[in-house]
Amino acid sequence: MERFESFEGGVCSAKGFRAAGVAAGIKYKDRKDVALIVADAPCSAAAMFTTNAVAAAPVVFDRSIAKYGCAQAILANSGCANACTGQEGLRDAVESVKATAATLGVDPRHVFIASTGVIGRRLPMKRLLAGMKDAAKNLAATPQAGLDAELAVMTTDTRPKQAAVKVKILGHEVTIGGMCKGSGMIEPNMATMLGFITTDCAITPGMLRNALKSAVTRGFNRVVVDGDQSTNDSVFIMASGAAGNKEIRHPDASFRLFRDALIQLIVTLAKQMAADGEGATKFVTVKVKGAATERDAELAARAIAKSPLCKTSWYGKDPNWGRILAAVGYSGAKIDETTAEVFYGKTWAYKQGKVADATQLKKLEAELAGPEVTVTVDLHFNNREFEIYTCDYSTEYVHINADYTT
Amino acid sequence: MERFESFEGGVCSAKGFRAAGVAAGIKYKDRKDVALIVADAPCSAAAMFTTNAVAAAPVVFDRSIAKYGCAQAILANSGCANACTGQEGLRDAVESVKATAATLGVDPRHVFIASTGVIGRRLPMKRLLAGMKDAAKNLAATPQAGLDAELAVMTTDTRPKQAAVKVKILGHEVTIGGMCKGSGMIEPNMATMLGFITTDCAITPGMLRNALKSAVTRGFNRVVVDGDQSTNDSVFIMASGAAGNKEIRHPDASFRLFRDALIQLIVTLAKQMAADGEGATKFVTVKVKGAATERDAELAARAIAKSPLCKTSWYGKDPNWGRILAAVGYSGAKIDETTAEVFYGKTWAYKQGKVADATQLKKLEAELAGPEVTVTVDLHFNNREFEIYTCDYSTEYVHINADYTT
Repeated sequence: MERFESFEGGVCSAKGFRAAGVAAGIKYKDRKDVALIVADAPCSAAAMFTTNAVAAAPVVFDRSIAKYGCAQAILANSGCANACTGQEGLRDAVESVKATAATLGVDPRHVFIASTGVIGRRLPMKRLLAGMKDAAKNLAATPQAGLDAELAVMTTDTRPKQAAVKVKILGHEVTIGGMCKGSGMIEPNMATMLGFITTDCAITPGMLRNALKSAVTRGFNRVVVDGDQSTNDSVFIMASGAAGNKEIRHPDASFRLFRDALIQLIVTLAKQMAADGEGATKFVTVKVKGAATERDAELAARAIAKSPLCKTSWYGKDPNWGRILAAVGYSGAKIDETTAEVFYGKTWAYKQGKVADATQLKKLEAELAGPEVTVTVDLHFNNREFEIYTCDYSTEYVHINADYTT
Repeated sequence: MERFESFEGGVCSAKGFRAAGVAAGIKYKDRKDVALIVADAPCSAAAMFTTNAVAAAPVVFDRSIAKYGCAQAILANSGCANACTGQEGLRDAVESVKATAATLGVDPRHVFIASTGVIGRRLPMKRLLAGMKDAAKNLAATPQAGLDAELAVMTTDTRPKQAAVKVKILGHEVTIGGMCKGSGMIEPNMATMLGFITTDCAITPGMLRNALKSAVTRGFNRVVVDGDQSTNDSVFIMASGAAGNKEIRHPDASFRLFRDALIQLIVTLAKQMAADGEGATKFVTVKVKGAATERDAELAARAIAKSPLCKTSWYGKDPNWGRILAAVGYSGAKIDETTAEVFYGKTWAYKQGKVADATQLKKLEAELAGPEVTVTVDLHFNNREFEIYTCDYSTEYVHINADYTT
């Protein structure tokens, strides 16, 4: 199915990058919580951030870095989001960046910062900076170093999420690797998503931004059900140019190859996030086809994916297709229930007014028994479709979120 | 606080109405599931229905009745929603109405029908009609008969929801009584809400419709977080005129008195629904004030009330005000986090950049300890405000909805 060669890897897969992750005691003892990703030289860079009107201090700071399209290092921490911390929080962000630049010997205008964790608490600066210095000493270009960095940004994630892909561009092998954290994907209106991508492609900041935007739209934004975003959501990409390809400067064939490989990478990471949704027992792909318009397809898919009643039915392995249809019904999408169809996997549950009988229900229950299922709605108007990645809604989700700060 | 005299009562409190509720085995054995509400003579009537594009058969049928503004009886059942049942479902609805009219000796054009329960199953007509006949024999104007009718429309509701109010209109005592069912108020995108109101006020169908619309906007639509609606949501009102007041025909002082009393009644019922949200342990009033516009106040309040992360924090008795601010942040409402404030009860959690310390957190935890709490956000722009009723999100909610059909 995949067009480009995927392989096990992360932020250290592409040439020109080192990483590290260390335990600095930001919130918990003996848990990795400070990460560094550092390029050997200044890179083309791009980033995308939360649209939340309440943006955390690191996001406010990073926006000023991102517009210049050049970066060499990213300092990230988990355990404290540095959000709703006012001017003091912004000063903490600036101080962290200055200290990181000094330690690494890089330009402070080339350092991003990312934080995730509890809102409304100041960063424990002493521990953070001690952790940063420790990480700087441990920088390496190995898979283990990439994994350490990933472990350091995880919060309620139960699994590290990394991926890498290779693409041949005019005879040069280009590598893109990445990692992300985020597992509040049930209805992630505040569960921070952080993504870090590195590549050795030679590409201008403008073209890199274009490619990132396409890939985030096709990947991360199809997990972030609802478009609701946390105060801290950020995705970064740095391109070292070490692959030696002719620099991509225009939206030509080389650009499209790079962009498509980046889309494949980010979709892979996005699916890993959905599958690791807080308390999730099932990875669910929701596909709406035959919609009257593309907008309708998206509205319907998002309504299903964010419906607690649909999500709890998946958890209960219950082919409750009525909830699916009803979600489409209130989504705003055009629907005629006499022609619409609902499928779990390849098995129909509701077919143009025909309702699953006991035999069919048995088949449907079998489709829902495993750890993955695709729910398809065919509206039978035009050939517009939209696909989104989500998960079920378990009692464990409530446990996780009922006392996250305490 | 209340302007009009509330008292214990329901659909039999106003003069001119009888009711009954019986067990007909629609879905479960020995559980009341068929209700009748019958007026002594044809009444002014009005009704409001779901905006879901997938409307159940009874809703499609009732719309044709409602436009004439005259009704004498309502047949209601729980256990089967008669939704997504196509032409056969519509025929079942029509047949039920004809049989009810014949049994009661009323005009079939004056009979509403309401259903709630599982989607995609045909009504068990034999049992439904046997139940209807049984209910017709048991009709009474007593509080017990009103309670029986309420018990027969409940699904996952844990408590009956009834209320009654008296209002003096130009020397005449007018009574309004009502009952409702609905407890999927966590994020009720499909948990059916049914409301049944009776009054002895003399009022034209047009004025009755106006009053109902105002009251539903102020009451039920402030529980139905999100505006998402089930396939079956319906609210009915019948006015017998037996109070003997001069018929209300214009939006005059008498109309406003009646309307305000109806608002009070429906807000009372709405609060009962929120407090009985599926698996709810806490009734939560969300109040946003100081908003730049009324639209902003509503957007912010609805975002908080439907945020699973806010809801689970209430369940965990955790004053996680960061989640509240973040919800306002993505709601689309204007917010400046340096001037915004968050309160639990009367205790501040976040005050213009100042964050609750350990002592303050203890006080906040005390506010969250009880079965009720008001969460207030003051945005400090203008004096626009909006209030909404909701509840917390517990593990029990997931249990209830994970296997509702099976």
